Amino acid sequence: MRYFLHLAYDGSAFHGWQIQPGVTTVQQELDRCLSQVLRQPVYCLGSGRTDSGVHASHQVAHFDADLPAGLDVPTLLYRLNRALPPSIRCQVLHPVPPDAHARFSAKIRTYEYHVRLTPDPFAANYSLYLDRAPDVAAMNEAAAMLLGTHDFTTFSKVKGAEKHYNCTCLEAGWHEEPGGLVFRIRANRFVRGMVRLVVGTLLSVGRGKMTPQEFGEVFRSLNRVHAGGAALANGLFLCRVEYPAELLGDAALPTGLPYFSEV
Amino acid sequence: MRYFLHLAYDGSAFHGWQIQPGVTTVQQELDRCLSQVLRQPVYCLGSGRTDSGVHASHQVAHFDADLPAGLDVPTLLYRLNRALPPSIRCQVLHPVPPDAHARFSAKIRTYEYHVRLTPDPFAANYSLYLDRAPDVAAMNEAAAMLLGTHDFTTFSKVKGAEKHYNCTCLEAGWHEEPGGLVFRIRANRFVRGMVRLVVGTLLSVGRGKMTPQEFGEVFRSLNRVHAGGAALANGLFLCRVEYPAELLGDAALPTGLPYFSEV
Repeated sequence: MRYFLHLAYDGSAFHGWQIQPGVTTVQQELDRCLSQVLRQPVYCLGSGRTDSGVHASHQVAHFDADLPAGLDVPTLLYRLNRALPPSIRCQVLHPVPPDAHARFSAKIRTYEYHVRLTPDPFAANYSLYLDRAPDVAAMNEAAAMLLGTHDFTTFSKVKGAEKHYNCTCLEAGWHEEPGGLVFRIRANRFVRGMVRLVVGTLLSVGRGKMTPQEFGEVFRSLNRVHAGGAALANGLFLCRVEYPAELLGDAALPTGLPYFSEV
Repeated sequence: MRYFLHLAYDGSAFHGWQIQPGVTTVQQELDRCLSQVLRQPVYCLGSGRTDSGVHASHQVAHFDADLPAGLDVPTLLYRLNRALPPSIRCQVLHPVPPDAHARFSAKIRTYEYHVRLTPDPFAANYSLYLDRAPDVAAMNEAAAMLLGTHDFTTFSKVKGAEKHYNCTCLEAGWHEEPGGLVFRIRANRFVRGMVRLVVGTLLSVGRGKMTPQEFGEVFRSLNRVHAGGAALANGLFLCRVEYPAELLGDAALPTGLPYFSEV
């Protein structure tokens, strides 16, 4: 039986999502705790990898397992959260058809990047602090060029890792929030390091080091060396993974969970 | 010249406020960074101590120093924040009369204790998580007994540490907030460990292990062994220290700072 697990994690404590030898990752903790609670080896697969220090207010993983007799889904969810560290919380668990896939069935993903403009000790792990406000209008003029289907080679960390670099971007813009700004980007897919490279380059525009027109030229150049530096991982949240409604069935939908972007 | 420093800190990283040998404390970091920036030994004194793991969204400390020629107050504040770890942020710095005292001039202090009722990996260090909602009406019936001037010996961690245990409590009650509850208590003074013991005992009422009437008997017994256990430090915030307006002068008042309780 295949299950979808909807979870949130504070990435500060982990070396990213993906299992790697010698370091603690979110996937490794999930596999360890699922295997412990289900008393069988369980391997989960996420909708996508997040880098070291990147957070998720909504991530989805699937796994295949047979629930032991007498163990129902709510009890499994409860025991899983008891076994996991408090920095990972699983919020919804539900069965899906056997061909449902956390990565390949996902239609849309949303990331948010938080910038703080007031010093705040509680936001240090969850945002980038800037002591001068960037030019939001200029950043949004540049961000609008990302909308639609484009080749994102310029904003890809690793050349050659993907079959193609085309992404269809449905939303990309900066918004004010208490104490700072948030950049929200919603697309069908993201290439490696894309959001942090986009944000780093948009912040160059916001600081007046690059005009929106130059941003457009850099974007169209398909040459990564023209992009700005990647913004720090701290401020980045994977905040929504969207699937066809029939896969989610009667499950409590992500909109009902805390920290979800109301796109 | 004497200065008041208004600051906030994430207590997760510190062994409390008070300097102690062999561990990192907030006061120690402030003294170290103030001395470094001012190039003279500086010792600061806080409005009160906070225990290990307890946070402050508003704390006030005073120190005496001569600003080197050419160093103004805004530049000192900027350099101090550059020197301090991101888990301590200083928000306002202003000169005060030489007899102003961070502890003895403080008139009112406010603490808040946060309880989460939904699992949230980002709140783990900043709240107590309960998987069942406590009875708020019963807790507030008990909390109302704290109002006015009373002997708080029952809710004092250390017997004999203070001259007297009388505190005048101006506000004490539970309120709903997104994802959970917050208990706010405002008083002229607090004896050691008081808020965590009050919260722990109120939660016993909220769980039905004690009636509000029994809470009143425990409170009046002046015997610490009758109180419930202390609530975890994680959820506790010192969130406002109030002084006579003439001491604060033209300084940007705490109400303008982020994270301040609007009492």
